[in-house]
Amino acid sequence: AIAEAVANHFESGVLAGVSVVITAGPTREAIDPVRYITNHSSGKMGYALAEAARDAGARVTLISGPVTLQPPERVKLVRVNSALDMLQAAESELEHCEIFIASAAVADYRPATVAEQKMKKSGDEMSIELVKNPDIVATVAAHTPHPFTVGFAAETQDVEHYARGKLASKNLDMIVANDVSRKDIGFNSDNNAATVYWPEGQQTFDTMNKHLLARELVAILASRFSAN
Amino acid sequence: AIAEAVANHFESGVLAGVSVVITAGPTREAIDPVRYITNHSSGKMGYALAEAARDAGARVTLISGPVTLQPPERVKLVRVNSALDMLQAAESELEHCEIFIASAAVADYRPATVAEQKMKKSGDEMSIELVKNPDIVATVAAHTPHPFTVGFAAETQDVEHYARGKLASKNLDMIVANDVSRKDIGFNSDNNAATVYWPEGQQTFDTMNKHLLARELVAILASRFSAN
Repeated sequence: AIAEAVANHFESGVLAGVSVVITAGPTREAIDPVRYITNHSSGKMGYALAEAARDAGARVTLISGPVTLQPPERVKLVRVNSALDMLQAAESELEHCEIFIASAAVADYRPATVAEQKMKKSGDEMSIELVKNPDIVATVAAHTPHPFTVGFAAETQDVEHYARGKLASKNLDMIVANDVSRKDIGFNSDNNAATVYWPEGQQTFDTMNKHLLARELVAILASRFSAN
Repeated sequence: AIAEAVANHFESGVLAGVSVVITAGPTREAIDPVRYITNHSSGKMGYALAEAARDAGARVTLISGPVTLQPPERVKLVRVNSALDMLQAAESELEHCEIFIASAAVADYRPATVAEQKMKKSGDEMSIELVKNPDIVATVAAHTPHPFTVGFAAETQDVEHYARGKLASKNLDMIVANDVSRKDIGFNSDNNAATVYWPEGQQTFDTMNKHLLARELVAILASRFSAN
């Protein structure tokens, strides 16, 4: 009875009954069985978004790269490693997905070949050949029909320029941009600041706890989702 | 009074009053402000060695790459990121170091240049140029005088061949080798198996909890250290 009451409460949220898929965390791109390329994403923003969307009544699937966070309750968690794994997981969730939020920091490139054995040190120099990974959020937004699609842009310079460029070129409905060159916010911090852009407008959120920011982002995306 | 009793107890261990420096965990080699190359080392073996050496009466300094483990009590912890950081930390501890245990999984190579801004996606292919990192354990073992120096060899094939090769070429007193291609042990596992080689002998430890293995390794290295 408590569970039902809780469920009914959620059904009254701004995303009541809406299916939301969220990607979170970094990806790991294997060089060999021991080494890999990754990035500083902690997954905190994506996990906070999953909790905020759940609390707004959504049915949430969280596709997560390797992080050290506790899995959120009442959220379907799909664990992945590489960008290719994450794309496959995202596509298999698309049929019932109404909102897709791509907060993961997906590796743009992966090693062209993965060595089966640990590579031995040899020369003083070597190079790793890389090939481009698929762009997960752009792939999702290119589907017909496609879910309301929200991208993220972690930039170190010209934030608005790059964010608006990605919004248009990837056919996104909304993009959340932040400046990862700022030491006080971003990847490993509990706080974040962001500017949200959509084709007709934008809104800036100053530095705040990621859980609070997640609630603000869910409110604004629910409003844009309803308007669509 | 309790602290003194405890301290007196430790003074009676097989490494009573001996200064031990241990490196642990992976290193991170920056590609740009966001991306880096690393490896699957969890640091568990090195942290277990720090605790075992401390419990054997040693004064322990633990130089640790980025891990998610709790810092051991009554151990001096020095946190580092890159291989160059770790070498600098190791060299600054050498003056008072009697035993040096290099359990960290140090990146063999680092990117030749670190981009100041996040690199933008451009071509379908790219490459990362790498240069060799200094070999920390070999650098320590090349000092005159040098501490009793213990290396680690994580291999995926021909384990004894590579381990004995490193023992000789790096002028080590002892090397601990394991086969990281085995899924049941090694980097992220709580268990490990290892064979220890020194110039005149070797000893094999079958799969066991890393804390138990650490005690075995401390016992054997204390015995070889005394014999030297």
